[in-house]
This record gives sequence, structure tokens and C-alpha cells, in this order.
Amino acid sequence: MINQKNVELGRRRSSIRELFEYGKKRKAEIGGDKVFDFSIGNPSVPAPAEVHTALKEIIEQTDPVALHSYTSAQGDFSVRKTLADYINKRFGTSLTADCLYMTCGAAASLTIVMNALLNKDEEIITVAPYFPEYKVFAEHAGGRLVAVDSADGTFQLDLNRIEAAINCRTKAVLINSPNNPSGVVYNADDIKRLAKLLEKYSHKFSNAIYLISDEPYRELVFDKDITVPYIMNYYARSIVCYSYSKSLSLPGERIGYIAVSNKMKEFEEVYAGICGAGRALGFVCAPNLFQQLVKRVYDKTSDISIYKHNRDRLYSALTDYGYTVVRPDGAFYLFVKALEEDARAFSEKAKQFELLVVAGDDFGCKGYVRISYCVAPDMIERALPAFKALAESYKQK
Amino acid sequence: MINQKNVELGRRRSSIRELFEYGKKRKAEIGGDKVFDFSIGNPSVPAPAEVHTALKEIIEQTDPVALHSYTSAQGDFSVRKTLADYINKRFGTSLTADCLYMTCGAAASLTIVMNALLNKDEEIITVAPYFPEYKVFAEHAGGRLVAVDSADGTFQLDLNRIEAAINCRTKAVLINSPNNPSGVVYNADDIKRLAKLLEKYSHKFSNAIYLISDEPYRELVFDKDITVPYIMNYYARSIVCYSYSKSLSLPGERIGYIAVSNKMKEFEEVYAGICGAGRALGFVCAPNLFQQLVKRVYDKTSDISIYKHNRDRLYSALTDYGYTVVRPDGAFYLFVKALEEDARAFSEKAKQFELLVVAGDDFGCKGYVRISYCVAPDMIERALPAFKALAESYKQK
Repeated sequence: MINQKNVELGRRRSSIRELFEYGKKRKAEIGGDKVFDFSIGNPSVPAPAEVHTALKEIIEQTDPVALHSYTSAQGDFSVRKTLADYINKRFGTSLTADCLYMTCGAAASLTIVMNALLNKDEEIITVAPYFPEYKVFAEHAGGRLVAVDSADGTFQLDLNRIEAAINCRTKAVLINSPNNPSGVVYNADDIKRLAKLLEKYSHKFSNAIYLISDEPYRELVFDKDITVPYIMNYYARSIVCYSYSKSLSLPGERIGYIAVSNKMKEFEEVYAGICGAGRALGFVCAPNLFQQLVKRVYDKTSDISIYKHNRDRLYSALTDYGYTVVRPDGAFYLFVKALEEDARAFSEKAKQFELLVVAGDDFGCKGYVRISYCVAPDMIERALPAFKALAESYKQK
Repeated sequence: MINQKNVELGRRRSSIRELFEYGKKRKAEIGGDKVFDFSIGNPSVPAPAEVHTALKEIIEQTDPVALHSYTSAQGDFSVRKTLADYINKRFGTSLTADCLYMTCGAAASLTIVMNALLNKDEEIITVAPYFPEYKVFAEHAGGRLVAVDSADGTFQLDLNRIEAAINCRTKAVLINSPNNPSGVVYNADDIKRLAKLLEKYSHKFSNAIYLISDEPYRELVFDKDITVPYIMNYYARSIVCYSYSKSLSLPGERIGYIAVSNKMKEFEEVYAGICGAGRALGFVCAPNLFQQLVKRVYDKTSDISIYKHNRDRLYSALTDYGYTVVRPDGAFYLFVKALEEDARAFSEKAKQFELLVVAGDDFGCKGYVRISYCVAPDMIERALPAFKALAESYKQK
């Protein structure tokens, strides 16, 4: 018998992926323009023009042996230096190149950090709703994911619930803001209170608790008055997992980084653990061409005005139709209250109207569905009558 | 305390890497042309011209949203189909696209396969000399690496030694041919005998034993009469881990694949385990741009005539100077008998002549050093007097 845990993981597709595959089949049956697929978080706007210009320049101007060679496992020094300088300028930190570790995207960042930190059966607390793969990653690293509910109605952090979950096995708290699937940005006051809590319990249990921030959506914030707090400015034991997948619309190219705060006293040990975990997991180095790319376009983003338009249009229409929606500050998801208790049943019902929306159950949050609005605006226009009809079908009962 | 096993792995650099770093420092001290660095296996010839042509064409001709989007976790279907067809044509197999799983290179292929197969404390047998990271990968996957010596003097497989190592915990045998560091290609007769052995013991212990072939050096074979046996043609429970790092000189870009033989009856389970392990390790998908690249240049290789020239020049000169060398059929390494019992001491002594060669101890094979000849031919010419002087320094004793 081979490893049955991994066999099961390989056989059991995520329900997001199931719905996406259903959508492909359904489109083939009735036509692509008749199915309203809000299932998947794949950026719908192209990479900024600078990306292709830079890629072509790098290929033309760099010696091919150097360009495609292994970098150090942490990533090319000049790439890390450029990104550290940019982070420092933007957030007032004092990171050096050696605080950064380049990775094959956010998932890699998370598995590397979890493997670096966790001993057997230690716990990572996260806040529901949360990205379902967190559980898979934590369990593979030998630990456990403990999900606590967010604040009722707002999806902000609920500090009391987090405190109640902390114990002597707690190794880290993992947050994701802007949040997938709620779109909520956690506010600075709560981050401050969370930091105090983690300091208190690190001391109480004589066991350092780390704060991990999963930040693929950092640049996808639509209103000028919203800022996403940088956790390193609030807590010494901070680790940021960043990815260019969404900001540069490069999800398939797998490029991101881990930044470890140099304010923690055991910095050297944590960074070494990250290097060791990256090595044991088989990452070797992040793709060199894309390391060189982000060195050139680190401050660019795709045209996110389309996502803002989509958010505003959907939020306003769905609210009009009687849906309950927390207005998202960022990312490209709406988390909408299902019109019946069982969100899976609601998601099934929506299919009758050719609407593909993911039940929140997989995100650890029952009674809601996720709408991915990284789609063409005209699909939203065509989908609105279906959303309206779906709402009306519940009123008729 | 964070995970100390990974901290230790992160702190303890491989001795290859140590020597490489020493070389960089030494070059800064006395000049780059005065240090003869044979420490590292980084291709010295550029990617074939078709690679950059194809990269630019792909970037110019493909819709950027599609080009950089997530592929399915297994890899883009059309890429897998193209590669499966090519393998079938070349080796007479009957693989479908769904036998292939695209990866971020050979290390990723190996960690994914090991995590898919291994239950706690199960064993993978490999043949010394072997690539040192095999042990790191196997242990992270919860298993153990069991190294058996190759045949005395030839570095070919020693079937008796392999048989003696097989027990009820044996999950796989891992071979690497052409071999890093010996350069030896395992012959077809021995592969045939190995297959018989694995069939016998799979049956005896009612526990399937897999044959894994790590093949980054498959295309680096220098003589027309040498063929590298394709294990799927000898054994049903075969898994091939392939990488384009060396054949296309793209080690930093991380692109390769796993091919699972569809002749094994539990194929579906093994492939699912691979999908599950890739997911749990955080790989998501192999870099899309490089997937599209290998779809176009799958049958190209870098100009390996330089490696052949280097092998011939070094082999003939070192033999003349009195060194004992098994003539390598492929890869870009010479495995040379040290001129004293302790290969680490010999490697230290070589430094006095500015020669950087890696002690074989890390490859599980004492008494030898590895010479990586993926270097500029003129460095070899400049290094030859140093090799001669090193040999003479031992004769004087």
C-alpha cells in the first residue's frame, strides 16, 4: 500500500475545482456565454505591459548560461536586495536581502514556513473563512490547523475567539488579508491587539508564537482610504508570505517570497529552518527568469480597475436583489449569504440558473457562497438577471 | 523551539556548496583564472538557440491571461500529450497524457514521488555513489534511504548487494543513470535482472516495490553505442523522474516531469498519490511559460559536444598522470580515485594546487573525488598542470 493520505488528497478534488470542471462541461453543452462561472480565482486581467517588455529584454540582454542557472536556494542576492529595499521604503522596515527567501509562489511560501516552524502535533490557528489548502499544508507538515470563526457579520478578527484557541501547542497564527473568500481587510487596531495577545501567550507558555500573513491579495485593494497593515510593524515574530500571482496576473508562473522580520531574536534560527524546509521539500530555487522579472517590475500591478468595477456592480445589484453581502475592501471575491441554511444546496440551486458559486463550507464557514468576480464585466451583466431570478425563486416559497 | 531538523538542514550546507563558496572567495583573492573550480554541476553551455526563439514567440503570440494562468495541477494537457507522444515514439511505450505529471524539476519530481509512495519508516534503496539530497528527501517523506555499494571497480549495479538490502519495508529502488557522480550508464542486462528481483520480492512480501529512475542526465551521453535503458520497458512498476535542467541548460527554471508506467495494475492509485503529494507539498503547478516551452523544444538539447571534449581531454590526461578513473559514459562528472585513503584530505590537498574537487564521502562512496567538467575547455587546459603536480606530490612521498 502506498501512502493513502496522499492518494486520498489526489483523488478528492477541491469543490472549487469540481465546480470549475462542471462549468467546462456545461459550457460545452449549452454554449460558453450561457454559463456564468464565478467558481475560480484566476486573474482575468492580463499582466501589465511592463511584464512582457521586461521578459523580452531579460531574454535578449542576459547571458543565457547566467540567466537560466541555479540561483542560491534563497534566491538571487540582487533580486532579494531590490525587494527588501522596496519593502523598507514602503513599510518603514529595516529588512536586508537576507531576510527574504524567494519561492515558487504563495503555496510554496506557506508549506516552507509551516515545515520550518511546526513540530509534530503543534497547531496553527487561522480565521474562518479561510483558504481550504491551509489545512492540507499544515497536516502535511505534521501539525494541525485550528480554525476560529471571524466576528459575526463583519468577518473581521474576533480576538476573544482567537485567545480561546491559544494553548501550549500553538506555534503560529495565520491570517490572510485581503481575505479569500470574504474580501475583508483586517483593521490595524485588531492587528495591534492580536500582537499583544501573541506576546502575552508566547511569554505565558515560554513558547514563541509566530504571526504569518498570507498576502497574495495585498495589491488588490480598491479604495484609497483602506490600507492593509504590515504585520512586521506590529509584531516582532512576523513572517510575510507574498506572491505575485494576483498583483501581476502570473498565477501559473509560481513566483513569490517569504520575508522574515529581523526584529525577532531567534531570526537566524527561523531563517535557517526556512532554508532547510525549502531544501527538504525539493524547491531548489524559485524560477530564475521570474526572479529577474520581479526585480524589474516589483512595483507594478495589473489594471485592477476592472475588479473594482466588477465589485461595485455586483455588490450594488446583489444588495438590490435582497442578498446580504459584506462589502469587500479587496481581493476579487464576494462572500454572499446563501438564501437557505445549507449553502451547498443553495450552490446546487444556483446551477439551475447556470450560476456557478462555491459553497462556503470548504472555507470553514457555513451558510455563505463565494463569488469570484475576476471575470469579464459583460459576463456579470449577463449573469445579473440569473442572480435576480435565483433570489426571486426563494421569495416565491 | 521550531522544527530543529529543518533548522539543521538549513544551517548545514552541502560540502559541494561549501567548496563552491570557498572557490568564489578564493577567486576574489587571487584572480578568477587562477582557481580551477570543478565543484558544481551547473551546465556551462548555453540553452540551445531554439529555447530563446521559442520563449519570445510564446510571449508574443499567446494571450497573456492564458499564458500565465494556472494550469491543472498535473500540467497543461496539450503539453503532457506532446511529451507522452514523444516518449512513446522514442521508447515504444503506450503512455497517455494522464501518465505524466509536470513538475518544478528533478528535485520536485523526487520529493513528490517519495511522498506519494512512502509510509512511515519504509525504505528506498539506492546505489552508491548517489546524489546526497536523496537522503534529505526520503527522510522528509517519513522514510529512510538505504544505500548499497555499486559493483567494485565499475560502479555498475551490484544485484547481490541490492538483493541483500531488500526487506518487507522496501518501497522502492531509486537509480540514477547516467550517474551523478560516476558518469556510469547502467547496462540493460542489469536492469533486466533488477526488474526480476523486484518482481520476486514484491510477490514474496506481498508489498509492491517500485523502480524509480532519476534522469536529469539522460540526454548527456557521448558515444553512439551507449543507450540508457528505459526502465518502463523492463518493469511494470516504473516511475521516471525527468528534468530539462541539464539537457536544455535550464537548471534555474525548474521544469521537468514524472512519468508513471500505465502497465502497473495500481496505476490510478499511484498517479492519485502523486497528485496528492504535489498538492500537500505546495507545488500547485509547474511554471506555465516553461511548460509551453518544453512543448516546443522537447527534442532539442544543448551542444553537448563540449562536455564530450572535456571528458575525453580530462580522462586521457588524468589517466596519463597516474590517476584511476572509470571512463564515464555520460553526465558531466568524472569520479576519480583519491591518491590517499581519505578523500576529504585529498580534496583539501588539491586546494593547495587551486583545484576544487568534491570528496565522494557525501555521495556515499569513500576514497573518490568528483570532478564536474561542465566548465570552459580553457580552464581544463590551465588546470592540467595542477592535476599533474598534485599527482607528483604523492609520488614524492
